Amino acid sequence: MATTVIDQLIFELAKLPGVGPRSARRLALNLLRERTKRIPTLVSALSAALEHVKTCSACGALDEADPCRICTDGTRDASLICVVEDVADVWAMERSRAFRGRYHVLGGTLSAIDGRGPDSLRIEPLIARVREGEVKELILALSATVAGQTTAHYVAERVADLPVKTTQLAHGIPMGAELDYMDDGTLSAALQARLAY
Amino acid sequence: MATTVIDQLIFELAKLPGVGPRSARRLALNLLRERTKRIPTLVSALSAALEHVKTCSACGALDEADPCRICTDGTRDASLICVVEDVADVWAMERSRAFRGRYHVLGGTLSAIDGRGPDSLRIEPLIARVREGEVKELILALSATVAGQTTAHYVAERVADLPVKTTQLAHGIPMGAELDYMDDGTLSAALQARLAY
Repeated sequence: MATTVIDQLIFELAKLPGVGPRSARRLALNLLRERTKRIPTLVSALSAALEHVKTCSACGALDEADPCRICTDGTRDASLICVVEDVADVWAMERSRAFRGRYHVLGGTLSAIDGRGPDSLRIEPLIARVREGEVKELILALSATVAGQTTAHYVAERVADLPVKTTQLAHGIPMGAELDYMDDGTLSAALQARLAY
Repeated sequence: MATTVIDQLIFELAKLPGVGPRSARRLALNLLRERTKRIPTLVSALSAALEHVKTCSACGALDEADPCRICTDGTRDASLICVVEDVADVWAMERSRAFRGRYHVLGGTLSAIDGRGPDSLRIEPLIARVREGEVKELILALSATVAGQTTAHYVAERVADLPVKTTQLAHGIPMGAELDYMDDGTLSAALQARLAY
């Protein structure tokens, strides 16, 4: 049944990633069924996020403070910067609890095909942070794809003359994986990087 | 990175059907990336829906008017009521453009296991609509499941003494389906209900 307000809600929900027209209708109906209970809490969560969330001017992550709480956390190692493509990668690293340095979000990868050159990424701010002198190591935690590795290579070249060590995440078999399901590239990378047992 | 406002948004988004913690993070990040553009439009669509959408007191569908535009549309056949489980079914029927009567939303199916008895469905209002005398046919468009067919049977029994014809949707092979992929129940229903070619 076509009504402007309901259609508009479905249209807005369908803009979300992975949500097609069919799931958007399902989401809308789910919200509308208990609308007095469900919609106000969602609206207030969205409004609070819009009001309070900022992009950290130092690292590019999202937080309620700028600079963000990771950048201002004195217990974290300021000499270590983990370079990632996206804010989602910062969240993933933080969930692993394996890293206690700081981050730098590039905002994507280089891609000649999609017309994303170095200027579209936050590479100059990264160089500036390195030039300040406190940073001793850049960990390039970029995707193991052509675009990710091209970007890693470009960043490594740009900081080659600066007094900073550049490393990258190890490639190999992910934990819990069965060898049988691994692709050739992963297997040969894991074989080349084999370690003494 | 755990921040109260972002976590709260992820928590609210994870309440949506089919959205787990992982997709909720993805939705939140997608909204936050272009937050000044994306969040206000979504908030206003949600607020407009909350303000304007009503449940039709006659048929139980959702609309901005009560009674809804289908119930008040004089070009539709008031002698024909299509009985469905849910508002989503009204939308599906309307998309098919195959039905020009009115609807009655039961609000679910009978289920002894889940403790949903006749009182939890809008069955009495349906009987009342039939008793008014204008309705000549009830089309039971309920799911082809045990719960759906139990509900259809119960509704048919309740109106058995009233001067109204009761029909149900045909069961058979859905359009575009390959026979090979059909289950036994569908095949035997289609065979029994076979028509002259």
